[in-house]
Amino acid sequence: MSRGKSQTQRTRSYESDDHERGACEWCEYALVITLATILLIGVSALTIFWVFYYRAGYAWADENPAKQFNLHPTLMVAGFITFSGFSVLLYRICRCFRRIYVKLLHAIFHALAFPCIVIGFLAVFDYHNKSGINNFYSLHSWIGLVAMGLFGIQYAVGFFSFLLLLICNKGTAGFRASLVPVHAAFGILTFVLGVAACLTGLTEKALFDIGTERYSALVDEAVILNTIGVSMIAILAVVMYILSRDKFRAPETRDGHIRASVDL
Amino acid sequence: MSRGKSQTQRTRSYESDDHERGACEWCEYALVITLATILLIGVSALTIFWVFYYRAGYAWADENPAKQFNLHPTLMVAGFITFSGFSVLLYRICRCFRRIYVKLLHAIFHALAFPCIVIGFLAVFDYHNKSGINNFYSLHSWIGLVAMGLFGIQYAVGFFSFLLLLICNKGTAGFRASLVPVHAAFGILTFVLGVAACLTGLTEKALFDIGTERYSALVDEAVILNTIGVSMIAILAVVMYILSRDKFRAPETRDGHIRASVDL
Ligand code: HEM
Ligand code: HEM
Repeated sequence: MSRGKSQTQRTRSYESDDHERGACEWCEYALVITLATILLIGVSALTIFWVFYYRAGYAWADENPAKQFNLHPTLMVAGFITFSGFSVLLYRICRCFRRIYVKLLHAIFHALAFPCIVIGFLAVFDYHNKSGINNFYSLHSWIGLVAMGLFGIQYAVGFFSFLLLLICNKGTAGFRASLVPVHAAFGILTFVLGVAACLTGLTEKALFDIGTERYSALVDEAVILNTIGVSMIAILAVVMYILSRDKFRAPETRDGHIRASVDL
Repeated sequence: MSRGKSQTQRTRSYESDDHERGACEWCEYALVITLATILLIGVSALTIFWVFYYRAGYAWADENPAKQFNLHPTLMVAGFITFSGFSVLLYRICRCFRRIYVKLLHAIFHALAFPCIVIGFLAVFDYHNKSGINNFYSLHSWIGLVAMGLFGIQYAVGFFSFLLLLICNKGTAGFRASLVPVHAAFGILTFVLGVAACLTGLTEKALFDIGTERYSALVDEAVILNTIGVSMIAILAVVMYILSRDKFRAPETRDGHIRASVDL
């Protein structure tokens, strides 16, 4: 099923691709990918700036649990937005790579997100316990738990079926192909839930720390927090736009279906 | 371009459809559509229950602006979640209708959502002014403004191009077909932003009215508010699942593309 593909894939490159797409399409592609890159890096940078400038930086210490909390938003944004965002876009960015390399990169980016999410969760869980605050009471934490659960399942299923099962490439091709759309749909859902968790978290933080009075007067910190949130909305828009454009796919996966000849 | 289609569409029905799909697929389809219906109606019902049981019901009066605020969440949930949700799913539910009727129903459901959103917005805007609270300071209100803006644009574009341009059916078919994927992608984005606005709104309301202390003790009202939020997450999951399943589309629109013979 996937024997004849190596040659065709090796000859594919940005050059050969060029024939299929006009200058205007290339411009749009470059613009949108650049925008996504700036936003994905920018949102993490802005979060780190906010913590250092307004929230006194980081620590993991018993004396100052508030500084330990600061690890939570930073690592969650890095894991669920920046790393996961790039990981999702890889399939549209690395269009001339052999598919197995794109898959490995996808797995590596999610492998970077994984410890961020685990430590980001432990930071707030431990902070709650140290400060005597109840666990898992808020809508934010419920959404967060669902998002983290989905992330774990997606990672396990993806690792097992798209990498491990390659050991028996031929026998499992049909099974793996049938999993692709499910994995993709749940992957987008996980990303959207990550964004929803961040937005509710930012809202809580604004009301806890800035307070209703100063928040409604739109003090500087309020504008920064709102801007982090709006950047995430922009990321959502750009990522969904990129994923919806069939033209941005690698040629062998166009039309919503991965052709049977492709090494899944 | 769309002359030959009337006959084929009239002969299409659930019967003829049946041949294409197994019993298992029918079960899945029926189950998922039923689940979506229950959730979409349930989330509005739960919001109304919450307002009457915990927030003293509705009013539009100068003496009690808090009761006037209550119109805001109720109408926003009805407009952005319940009506918009059904409107999106119509294309998967009314699979045996002629396409023009589905489009009209889609427009009608959004026409029901429209006044809900306008009055829902005016309720909170007027409440803020009456109570001397600043406007548009929160991340929630920023997300809400983007969502409402997108909704307005989508409605205008959809009405103009998919209904009005039918006057010149033949000449505009290509143009209308090219708009469909853009309209669909932005429609899903609008829906997701509506959910994000609701989730941040619920979080604000929980911290304003229930307060940190009682919220973290998970009093009854906290559980109700969190449940409304989690229902919206479930709606997001079910709607995205239904939209991602090619099998749930009307036959003539499968494979991610609307066939040229279809009356768009
Ligand atoms: C995808 C990203 C995120 C996930 C999955 C997530 C998950 C969680 C979870 C599970 C808790 C409950 C911990 C416990 O009760 O022991 C929590 C608490 C909290 N998170 Fe996040 N979080 C995310 C992003 C953020 C962001 C960006 C902020 C913004 C500053 C934030 C602010 C908070 C706050 C203030 C709490 C403590 C209050 C509460 O339990 O609701 N979170 N988070
Ligand atoms: C898609 C749905 C929604 C949209 C588009 C939306 C939009 C808005 C906008 C634009 C404002 C600012 C009004 C002003 O400042 O004059 C606002 C305020 C508010 N909304 Fe919503 N809303 C939605 C759903 C909800 C829900 C479900 C709740 C939950 C109870 C809620 C709670 C609030 C609260 C408490 C305020 C006042 C505080 C603030 O300005 O943030 N909203 N909403």
